[in-house]
Amino acid sequence: MQAAQPVHGRYYTSTVRESEVLKSILGRSPSDDPRVLIGPGDDLACVRVSPPESPEVGPPLLVGADQVIDGLHVRADLIPWDLIGRKAVCRALSDVAAMAGRPVATIATALLPADAEAHAVEKLCTGLFEAAALVHAPLVGGDVAIHRTDSGPLSISVTVLATPSEQQSGGQSVRRDGARVGDRLVVTGPLGGAVGADGFGHHLTFTPRLSEAVMLRAILGVDLHAMIDLSDGLGRDAGRIAAASGVHMMLDAMQVPCRTGVSWEQAVGDGEDYELLLAVGPEANLPEALGGSAESCHLHVIGEVVEASADTPLVGVRTLDGEVRDVSAMGWDHG
Amino acid sequence: MQAAQPVHGRYYTSTVRESEVLKSILGRSPSDDPRVLIGPGDDLACVRVSPPESPEVGPPLLVGADQVIDGLHVRADLIPWDLIGRKAVCRALSDVAAMAGRPVATIATALLPADAEAHAVEKLCTGLFEAAALVHAPLVGGDVAIHRTDSGPLSISVTVLATPSEQQSGGQSVRRDGARVGDRLVVTGPLGGAVGADGFGHHLTFTPRLSEAVMLRAILGVDLHAMIDLSDGLGRDAGRIAAASGVHMMLDAMQVPCRTGVSWEQAVGDGEDYELLLAVGPEANLPEALGGSAESCHLHVIGEVVEASADTPLVGVRTLDGEVRDVSAMGWDHG
Repeated sequence: MQAAQPVHGRYYTSTVRESEVLKSILGRSPSDDPRVLIGPGDDLACVRVSPPESPEVGPPLLVGADQVIDGLHVRADLIPWDLIGRKAVCRALSDVAAMAGRPVATIATALLPADAEAHAVEKLCTGLFEAAALVHAPLVGGDVAIHRTDSGPLSISVTVLATPSEQQSGGQSVRRDGARVGDRLVVTGPLGGAVGADGFGHHLTFTPRLSEAVMLRAILGVDLHAMIDLSDGLGRDAGRIAAASGVHMMLDAMQVPCRTGVSWEQAVGDGEDYELLLAVGPEANLPEALGGSAESCHLHVIGEVVEASADTPLVGVRTLDGEVRDVSAMGWDHG
Repeated sequence: MQAAQPVHGRYYTSTVRESEVLKSILGRSPSDDPRVLIGPGDDLACVRVSPPESPEVGPPLLVGADQVIDGLHVRADLIPWDLIGRKAVCRALSDVAAMAGRPVATIATALLPADAEAHAVEKLCTGLFEAAALVHAPLVGGDVAIHRTDSGPLSISVTVLATPSEQQSGGQSVRRDGARVGDRLVVTGPLGGAVGADGFGHHLTFTPRLSEAVMLRAILGVDLHAMIDLSDGLGRDAGRIAAASGVHMMLDAMQVPCRTGVSWEQAVGDGEDYELLLAVGPEANLPEALGGSAESCHLHVIGEVVEASADTPLVGVRTLDGEVRDVSAMGWDHG
């Protein structure tokens, strides 16, 4: 088995695929611990903050983790390390946005190359701490270690803690599995080309859509059926909502918002956009944009949820000439 | 600058030291977020589970993270990967024991070598999930990625969530900075030789002292002044309590419990024991052992807390011939 990715300038082959490992993890029996409200499989898990013997007493907490790895998500030889730290934090917090959560704190572990320079490490820490503080998710702890081998690459793991957006109403988070036939599919911004040929670009400078997610949750209420953040590519990430919800999706190539100079195929497959994809009930009154600032977020209806059938792909795109292309596998194999 | 460690059979040199990176992190201004009750620097941080705008509403949560890395904490070419997963979870939970916390959940991220075999990855997951379930800290989420370079080693990062042991009484955790002159220093088991010449041994099979810590907290109450888990070596870890508390420590070489065939120097410097070191007030009634089972935990008084003075080392050991040896730096440079 092989996986090849033209990401960040390097190809690789490996004996296992990330998606296969995840499938094996999700195939395990779920925990029978009553404190686990949402287990592995969504953007974040949800647990009650309670000691083992009194599982009912505590409030719900959203928690999840993500990694940024040299050669996979960044090129550590090209990119200033404060931007790498920033990306590690923002990437993990994008999962909080995906569930319309409110950040509580972040934890980070870093594994440094043996030849890391002190000033680069200092910048990495600055990037981590400042990005976390900026979105009200203070970095409160973690660990640092240094590779014992010459060629071990930089990697950073960030865990995020958040509260569900509506703690009073029982801690309902926006999950992946609520999309229904007839829902409109909506994205919060232009897609594609997030990683430039020089390794720089949107993937290093984006701000996770935390406040937009909370606004959408407040405006749309129960009509916000499902949500995910677009990290691995629209095709693959839309497929995750579709699979979790037991539906198919049909997108319109002409409606997919593309970053300047980017084709719809790139917009669907490039990944690293960190915009939100929503499934919204047909009755809901959808605003055109959120916020009034220069950074206001435009909402784009790009397709709809259709019935699962053998005649349609999990995620299809209808092109200008009326053909339907299967894009379910377009994007990363779990970045 | 160089650091050399004879750990797990490999020597290394690197341009930065973990302790220096940590010093730089701890030298940053603390977060001014009122939800942060304990920031970086103790075994775990403590935050209130509250959204940013209402920092007072939620209960306190202990949180921290630790790593297990091939070549540093294990040899992935020698050790079955279920034991590596087990160690990663137990090592992180040992920090929960150090603060007498009660586990809530764990999150794990894994970065796999490109040539990892599917059955080894499966065992790794089994080790992670089973160890977590066993101590009531269900593994609820995380991430898996695969190195894009040929020689990137296996690494695992585990985040632990826990509640303070006495949530009702304001969430007082046992910290590192409470040791006082006159306190007895106590360890919960034999030290040294935890990593065998073959790479196996206690460091792969220990159970974190979670229940013992809660019992000690209950028995000793406010006389339990400070606690830490011994991962980097008694010398270095005792020095952490001493430095945080502004005191010195004097140990008695004859009283340090040694694993069979191990010298006191090894017991002080080897690390990876995952026993607890306590500073206990002189008035407290100290039990000899906890629990009545075959695995009962014996308590050993190994020394006392003394005044900080220029005449004594941060952590000293009095040997049989009456000499005092400085052992403050014996152990790992932050493993």
